[in-house]
Amino acid sequence: MPHISIEGPPIRELETKRKLVEGLTEAAANAYGLRKEIITVLIKENAPENVGVGGQLLVDRWKAESEKSPD
Amino acid sequence: MPHISIEGPPIRELETKRKLVEGLTEAAANAYGLRKEIITVLIKENAPENVGVGGQLLVDRWKAESEKSPD
Amino acid sequence: MPHISIEGPPIRELETKRKLVEGLTEAAANAYGLRKEIITVLIKENAPENVGVGGQLLVDRWKAESEKSPD
Amino acid sequence: MPHISIEGPPIRELETKRKLVEGLTEAAANAYGLRKEIITVLIKENAPENVGVGGQLLVDRWKAESEKSPD
Amino acid sequence: MPHISIEGPPIRELETKRKLVEGLTEAAANAYGLRKEIITVLIKENAPENVGVGGQLLVDRWKAESEKSPD
Amino acid sequence: MPHISIEGPPIRELETKRKLVEGLTEAAANAYGLRKEIITVLIKENAPENVGVGGQLLVDRWKAESEKSPD
Repeated sequence: MPHISIEGPPIRELETKRKLVEGLTEAAANAYGLRKEIITVLIKENAPENVGVGGQLLVDRWKAESEKSPD
Repeated sequence: MPHISIEGPPIRELETKRKLVEGLTEAAANAYGLRKEIITVLIKENAPENVGVGGQLLVDRWKAESEKSPD
Repeated sequence: MPHISIEGPPIRELETKRKLVEGLTEAAANAYGLRKEIITVLIKENAPENVGVGGQLLVDRWKAESEKSPD
Repeated sequence: MPHISIEGPPIRELETKRKLVEGLTEAAANAYGLRKEIITVLIKENAPENVGVGGQLLVDRWKAESEKSPD
Repeated sequence: MPHISIEGPPIRELETKRKLVEGLTEAAANAYGLRKEIITVLIKENAPENVGVGGQLLVDRWKAESEKSPD
Repeated sequence: MPHISIEGPPIRELETKRKLVEGLTEAAANAYGLRKEIITVLIKENAPENVGVGGQLLVDRWKAESEKSPD
């Protein structure tokens, strides 16, 4: 504890995960005034067909948007 | 926000996920009196070997039940 | 299982919670094709000082918005 | 989405919550390469009697530690 | 890590929380073959008006049941 | 309800998952004084590249440790 969990899109590069964990941990350590060692982070990757925004799956939403702006 | 997360079994059809996200979002928008656009949904799919009910894995539970009623 | 968890603002009326639980449960039962009895819902109420959107606490965001449109 | 949830101790100052939400949001925006506006944060405050570390409640753990080092 | 989170009813006695954290931590340590020190537990207490089972709030469900069996 | 969720490393053997679900469910049933049948468990498996401890991914942490103690 503290324990951070982040729900986001899939991440391809290990370097991105490194940056994410470093940044979140530092932000939490600074705000709470706690040492980084006791802070844990869990990265959760979600396929766009498992995420809904405004009642619509992200896969459908992206498709609708790309059809609106075809260039 | 609001943010809905639903833990359930794996879902095969994209149409089912569509229906799930639409229904959950509408239910929340109606109850809170908020517009759908700010509501997010996360569908979490869990293998039956990762779910326990009554102290028993779902895979074992289903097997036990099918042996009781063999037709 | 399925298990629904909804993170939202505080809810004052019990009737709103009733409507929320009924609606979410029905939406999930319909989409999964499962009976309502095995579906659970957890309502989580969050104070606006514990929610951040776009890097800003909701309390600050609302204040900023009301100052922009003073009527 | 992305959606960050942080489980930690109670926070007394609103300024600390501000700092926490700003820092977490920036870290996530930088790592994902996404704009801050779509990132949400939920701060969860937990009483020390509701947190266990190493099989022991935090309240008991702190008491045991303060008895070991009485100055 | 591992990190256990348990959503349940409000708990009045500190001794119950102690027992819960001890038991969950030991169960996890035994199954994973990990030392207890790295396992954390979060107890979440939920009012019966924030929990839905079968589409019904627990407060309503209990009331309905007590009216059926009045002794 | 109660609903237990455990975030940990990947588990290879089904027997380990059985033991984990049995142990967690019994611990919760004993502490709350509730029957096991209404308790659910969700096992969440996390790749070491999705877990951060002390600001470092587990994959990097393990590598750093194995380089320190080369036998």
